[in-house]
Amino acid sequence: MKSSMQLLLNCDLGESFGAWRMGVDEQVMPFIDQANIACGFHAGDPMVMKHTLQAAKNHNVAVGAHPSYPDLGGFGRRSMTLPAADLIAILQYQIAALVGMANNLGIQVEYVKPHGALYNDMMVNGLIRSAVMQAIAETDRPLAFMMQANGDYETNRSEAKAFGLKVMFEGFADRCYDDRGALVSRAQMGAVHNREKMLAQVTQLMEHGSVTTENGHLMPLHIDSLCVHGDNLAGVESIADIRRLIDQ
Amino acid sequence: MKSSMQLLLNCDLGESFGAWRMGVDEQVMPFIDQANIACGFHAGDPMVMKHTLQAAKNHNVAVGAHPSYPDLGGFGRRSMTLPAADLIAILQYQIAALVGMANNLGIQVEYVKPHGALYNDMMVNGLIRSAVMQAIAETDRPLAFMMQANGDYETNRSEAKAFGLKVMFEGFADRCYDDRGALVSRAQMGAVHNREKMLAQVTQLMEHGSVTTENGHLMPLHIDSLCVHGDNLAGVESIADIRRLIDQ
Amino acid sequence: MKSSMQLLLNCDLGESFGAWRMGVDEQVMPFIDQANIACGFHAGDPMVMKHTLQAAKNHNVAVGAHPSYPDLGGFGRRSMTLPAADLIAILQYQIAALVGMANNLGIQVEYVKPHGALYNDMMVNGLIRSAVMQAIAETDRPLAFMMQANGDYETNRSEAKAFGLKVMFEGFADRCYDDRGALVSRAQMGAVHNREKMLAQVTQLMEHGSVTTENGHLMPLHIDSLCVHGDNLAGVESIADIRRLIDQ
Amino acid sequence: MKSSMQLLLNCDLGESFGAWRMGVDEQVMPFIDQANIACGFHAGDPMVMKHTLQAAKNHNVAVGAHPSYPDLGGFGRRSMTLPAADLIAILQYQIAALVGMANNLGIQVEYVKPHGALYNDMMVNGLIRSAVMQAIAETDRPLAFMMQANGDYETNRSEAKAFGLKVMFEGFADRCYDDRGALVSRAQMGAVHNREKMLAQVTQLMEHGSVTTENGHLMPLHIDSLCVHGDNLAGVESIADIRRLIDQ
Repeated sequence: MKSSMQLLLNCDLGESFGAWRMGVDEQVMPFIDQANIACGFHAGDPMVMKHTLQAAKNHNVAVGAHPSYPDLGGFGRRSMTLPAADLIAILQYQIAALVGMANNLGIQVEYVKPHGALYNDMMVNGLIRSAVMQAIAETDRPLAFMMQANGDYETNRSEAKAFGLKVMFEGFADRCYDDRGALVSRAQMGAVHNREKMLAQVTQLMEHGSVTTENGHLMPLHIDSLCVHGDNLAGVESIADIRRLIDQ
Repeated sequence: MKSSMQLLLNCDLGESFGAWRMGVDEQVMPFIDQANIACGFHAGDPMVMKHTLQAAKNHNVAVGAHPSYPDLGGFGRRSMTLPAADLIAILQYQIAALVGMANNLGIQVEYVKPHGALYNDMMVNGLIRSAVMQAIAETDRPLAFMMQANGDYETNRSEAKAFGLKVMFEGFADRCYDDRGALVSRAQMGAVHNREKMLAQVTQLMEHGSVTTENGHLMPLHIDSLCVHGDNLAGVESIADIRRLIDQ
Repeated sequence: MKSSMQLLLNCDLGESFGAWRMGVDEQVMPFIDQANIACGFHAGDPMVMKHTLQAAKNHNVAVGAHPSYPDLGGFGRRSMTLPAADLIAILQYQIAALVGMANNLGIQVEYVKPHGALYNDMMVNGLIRSAVMQAIAETDRPLAFMMQANGDYETNRSEAKAFGLKVMFEGFADRCYDDRGALVSRAQMGAVHNREKMLAQVTQLMEHGSVTTENGHLMPLHIDSLCVHGDNLAGVESIADIRRLIDQ
Repeated sequence: MKSSMQLLLNCDLGESFGAWRMGVDEQVMPFIDQANIACGFHAGDPMVMKHTLQAAKNHNVAVGAHPSYPDLGGFGRRSMTLPAADLIAILQYQIAALVGMANNLGIQVEYVKPHGALYNDMMVNGLIRSAVMQAIAETDRPLAFMMQANGDYETNRSEAKAFGLKVMFEGFADRCYDDRGALVSRAQMGAVHNREKMLAQVTQLMEHGSVTTENGHLMPLHIDSLCVHGDNLAGVESIADIRRLIDQ
């Protein structure tokens, strides 16, 4: 199965805050399809959000909400134990803020992709994943749920279906997968691909819908979108490389 | 002109935060028509907002956004100098968050009433008032702008009209007015009415559309809504008294 | 062994924040020996801290720092995963702020007692406990470390000794203990004693240095200080009762 | 009068926060004498503060507290109206946090220089300046007060003397002065000197204790320290240039 027709590029954007800049959003925008925009709880402030939404509109880039644990000091990278009802309200606040600010600019937010520790926690903890999906499902907009493709398509889709949600699966171009479909920890050697391996992984994902795991096994991995990183100009070069590969 | 038919009661609600309680919202709800709900920047957190919205719905109380300067530590009572574009984005974020969370519960937010120092600053500073009105006008919902009735109806209405906004004028039951239509400072003797004078002021507002100022002058004051205070059970008694007076 | 001579009462105080009040600190102060004062990260702001320090001085109450995870929205009740070095710096900041503000008033802070989720996490996780102890040990003041008495005196004392710290063990008057020396979860029936059982537990702690666990076993529990709760006036009555019992 | 012997260079440092970097502190440290370290209210978090203190110690750079209005979202550049007692407590908290963390590393904090909007407000508003000086005076350490040299030495010194404080006057190398000793607004043409004019101004300050104002007048300006900017590598070059000039 070839998925080259629809493979999208998504990137976390709008992660500046106040006087602090992060990322090279303007350079990234021309190459991506989907902007995951921070909603103020790990990064992004109202001015940054408005500016990023406008930039996404200018570049015809689709917009997703990128909500987080309430953790500005830790950039949302710290796990927090929250009652499910609190987590749901916290996510709905962030989603509502971005959706409303987007509407003001004539933009429809299309999906929700949790950030950082919440994303990681959600991928391994069904209760947290349920809370995230319930938060999205209770929103009065038809927002898709973006999660990591881990091979368990049936489980993931049926879980989401129970909440009435459409799932968008994302994969990673530059990260090595283990045999269970999880990312190899960055702490480990070989966790992050060089340019050549990265492009090979993208090609394999597009042409064969699979990745080669750290142990050399072939694992089917069907994804809708590829997560790329726009932290700096080196990142932008990688994104441009992947864009060219996809557009061929 | 009698305005007794349409005089509404509005109250600032949802001003708890995290573990801290403020106000006796549940006791107030049965007596009021409009709840000004904090949006998280001076008070209110996502859980409090959701709970307050649900309570307003249960009591068939209309909902307004009650946004503030970003000042949790000062409860929005500290003036802050903000570039207009920043203030606008900060207000739109708060409005969007409340509007979206309300929509999730099937509630339409009807108006915006700024809080605390922002409210006071806006009443004396045309640039700040313009920024507030622009923030509301750019919102993709038809939200009214609630401001203090100060006698300058024509100016206020024409300003709002320039932004395409409907104005709702509010007055105060328990506060003494000066001859210019402003509230006498709380620091001054006689600034806050006792029960008898408060009810007399409400009667005068309803029956004659006027107040008697601190100097004994009669000043026309046409209002749409009366601001009442639900900080404690004594406040609730006053609200109940005013409710009975209005409903007679 | 009778410990009635030195059994102290400690209470979490200074947990108001901005416009929000919590606790009846003024009523509690006359009855306690040690005030655990919030340092601004779960509660307490600079004004509240200064006021609480002055009140402690007026009542001749000893002062301890009561630092927390950085979690104002969750009142420090949410566990957070923090690198040890970050947790240490976060604690040292809070301790330094309270120590310095106390010094300005001529008060010496005597000990550190972690708050909420950090306290609970520290009692079951040796790595977090080590980070807490290192944070205290690196402070240029001889601050004691207050922790929960759980029966493992030798382990606890030797751990603290490795960091050069003096330990103060605290117990609870109104909470039922399980056989391992931990508190029975509040979610369980019988977790919180009524007045009679509470006073009996205090008497037993003073006279016999033991508690009777949920299963009726006698467990030795030697404590330096008893944690009492000043959330409301009912709490103050309990504290006054315990004070009278101790002073007999 | 030559002041070349004692002219010091001070720089605002430690203004990163969480995941966000600001400034090139490591590059600046070798060239300066005094580091004004952010205390967590406009920038700086406990980890950044600890790291910056250690770096200052390594480079044998003196340390000053650089406290701010509580305004992380606005980087302390927004004026805020605060009761004097609140401002005093807010400053003392920040000063105490930095002083204590410095003490833990064997460093004595030497002075306090307010940041951003607070600095500007203090220079034009005597009530705010009094609150700042009182905050410092109540601190149990002999901290000097760093303020802008504006020509009113007698007034400034006598004000500070009333609080028992030593003043350190600072000047600016790259900013044009007006005839009253204030900085020409950055919004105006010619407000910021090019390299040549900057070095000429430093030479004139050292050799003649004066500046040439925007209108070409000679104005006496005796300073203890010169404020330099380490935002980026271009800034570091300027600092290195000034360092060489001073050390000649």
